[in-house]
Amino acid sequence: MKAEIITIGDELLIGQVIDTNSAWMGEELNKIGIKINRITSISDDRDEIISTLKEASKRAHLVLITGGLGPTNDDITKKTLADFFKVNMRFDEKAFEDVVHLFSIRGREVSAINRFQAEVPENCTTLYNKVGTAPGMWFDEADVVYVSLPGVPYEMKYLMENEVIPRVKQRFKTPFIVHSTVLTFGIGESFLAEKIAAFENALPDSIKLAYLPSAGSVRLRLSGSGNDEQEVNDLVRHLTNQLSEIIPEYIYGYEKDELPKVVGNLLKLKGLSLATAESCSGGFMAHLITSIPGSSAYYMGSSVTYSNESKTQLLNIPASLIEKYGAVSEPVVLAMVESAKKLFKVDCAIATTGVAGPGGGTPEKPVGTVWVGVSTPDETKAYLLKLGDNRLRTIEVAALSGLNLLRKALLKK
Amino acid sequence: MKAEIITIGDELLIGQVIDTNSAWMGEELNKIGIKINRITSISDDRDEIISTLKEASKRAHLVLITGGLGPTNDDITKKTLADFFKVNMRFDEKAFEDVVHLFSIRGREVSAINRFQAEVPENCTTLYNKVGTAPGMWFDEADVVYVSLPGVPYEMKYLMENEVIPRVKQRFKTPFIVHSTVLTFGIGESFLAEKIAAFENALPDSIKLAYLPSAGSVRLRLSGSGNDEQEVNDLVRHLTNQLSEIIPEYIYGYEKDELPKVVGNLLKLKGLSLATAESCSGGFMAHLITSIPGSSAYYMGSSVTYSNESKTQLLNIPASLIEKYGAVSEPVVLAMVESAKKLFKVDCAIATTGVAGPGGGTPEKPVGTVWVGVSTPDETKAYLLKLGDNRLRTIEVAALSGLNLLRKALLKK
Repeated sequence: MKAEIITIGDELLIGQVIDTNSAWMGEELNKIGIKINRITSISDDRDEIISTLKEASKRAHLVLITGGLGPTNDDITKKTLADFFKVNMRFDEKAFEDVVHLFSIRGREVSAINRFQAEVPENCTTLYNKVGTAPGMWFDEADVVYVSLPGVPYEMKYLMENEVIPRVKQRFKTPFIVHSTVLTFGIGESFLAEKIAAFENALPDSIKLAYLPSAGSVRLRLSGSGNDEQEVNDLVRHLTNQLSEIIPEYIYGYEKDELPKVVGNLLKLKGLSLATAESCSGGFMAHLITSIPGSSAYYMGSSVTYSNESKTQLLNIPASLIEKYGAVSEPVVLAMVESAKKLFKVDCAIATTGVAGPGGGTPEKPVGTVWVGVSTPDETKAYLLKLGDNRLRTIEVAALSGLNLLRKALLKK
Repeated sequence: MKAEIITIGDELLIGQVIDTNSAWMGEELNKIGIKINRITSISDDRDEIISTLKEASKRAHLVLITGGLGPTNDDITKKTLADFFKVNMRFDEKAFEDVVHLFSIRGREVSAINRFQAEVPENCTTLYNKVGTAPGMWFDEADVVYVSLPGVPYEMKYLMENEVIPRVKQRFKTPFIVHSTVLTFGIGESFLAEKIAAFENALPDSIKLAYLPSAGSVRLRLSGSGNDEQEVNDLVRHLTNQLSEIIPEYIYGYEKDELPKVVGNLLKLKGLSLATAESCSGGFMAHLITSIPGSSAYYMGSSVTYSNESKTQLLNIPASLIEKYGAVSEPVVLAMVESAKKLFKVDCAIATTGVAGPGGGTPEKPVGTVWVGVSTPDETKAYLLKLGDNRLRTIEVAALSGLNLLRKALLKK
């Protein structure tokens, strides 16, 4: 069983709009055991649409089309589908009632152009759209199912959830697919690959392993497929546990966990409060923490001290200490983290000081040198990181590393 | 001249990652007169990659491939390209030196797997990657150019800007295209459209106008094309000036200007220093300011006070003031901005306090209510914003609005 998505619209090709629909559709179909084999984005051009449909129909059993169903002139998907199937259009009374109803609750009048929106190719099953004016369409021709949906994300989602997914489940027999994602931090992709080489080489054919890297972290995704739901579930769960036992010190979560949320949940669980003192991370650690709804329950704030004077004024770091060791040093980061704890009257604190670059590096402390201080009720420690010469990456990894080091310190207890 | 993008990776097909690379590449190529005709996303499967390359080579003169170049087993683009061209691999000494250098500045050792990253098909021109371990590759075979790039966005962007775009310009004859971008803040897309309707309707056919909205701001891009370089340049410059005269109060810059950098340049020009006091923006304003290299010359830091207690402890806001008016109020934001000025001993300050949500809203102060305080040597003022119920958008727009309000206050002088 093969499936493809075709997205139609010039705005996707010139980068004006990012195609988020395909990712959402791919994820939803994957949950019912259908893997998308190909996504094709093309111009809203009749010939281009027809040739792409012809190619897809040779490869796939299910072809999902989005875009090109709105009321304006550049929307031509519907007419092109009628040409592709060599059929006429018919007026769908019920689809028109939906349009009239939608306009009435929005206090608008129906125009001539909206009447055209209720026309569909005569060989389709209409998928009625309660949240927009363009109906979806389902075609079942020569053993291939074609589904055409509007490109507006919430209309597409409404029709997928209420009309398409139930019909697809009924129409196709699909294998059972399970994914499990293990989230690691603080180890590069190649080192991770070496550590789990034996595990990876021993994986059965029904299981695939993917490495998905981003700043400071690598997500490991195990995907299993088969016909026996119980069997696939058990195998993926067993392998996830096995993987977790090989690299426990690098794992901060599973599936869609986020590091700031994981740390927040730990703090809430232990009834502890947090503050930060940031130099090189420049407020980004505070931003990561406060991005999480409800973070005000455990997070008191941050002293972002971007100059030596502000470190002295706000955090009471002695000017002599900065002069003796430099602002980027172990004694200063330890003084910062202790001071944040006192100042905000909290149980835990994280501090950063480093050379984000591009200027400010020296032979002893090159750009990318970062000290992170972490303090819990049990211990206060400093860590030295070397993060390279990309300023924004250094800021991001310094902030995330601070959170991860606090997480590890809290788990020691 | 036809161009296509092929993106490789299961993570795109199952919706784990949204393909933002293609939109960025489409936009950049569009700027040099090349329109992408098709974007195809496929699995990291050898046969799938080869058949897609074959199809694309029949339609396009330029084929850009991203993804599948990392060090681990699931990355097979490189091997498949060698198969496609029927050539062997060669070890690229200079690419290996890049890997060794990158690892040394990150304080890590090179592993055996990294040696493989310096291998490339023998018929390619290596595109050296200074920001990551996977080199790009340029193939020019039978009148089609194929470019293979890593999927990590900042590595892809580095190689596009420094290696690919200059080579594409040289290799292909493209019509002359000029873009001019006017950056506005604080006015919605539809209001902007009304204000410039007469201007837009009078535009000649050779000029296109695009609205590119993002949080709080709308970029207006004028694109002119033609064969006479001088003529296109003059027309676009003239229209940019005309547009600037219609909406001067909303324009903060042109082309790739960034609001935090525009504000930083203004401060440097006037020899003024800045600090911030943040509640609802939670450190994001500090992050925006410190994202700019050299910001330590004028920015002293931020007091991120995320609780009422920390507002009192760190910023000396009287608890009675908070009790009387609430933390989200004009008197409190004015006290915060004045306090930040004193505490950091600076000339200018910005403060935010608001309800980012999803919790904490009341009928009088619903989610999205934000007070921004701005203080310069000449005046101190408070502004009320209503930013809606998207938490992350509220944080972002609150921070950007603070910067824009300071910019406008500084220009009054």
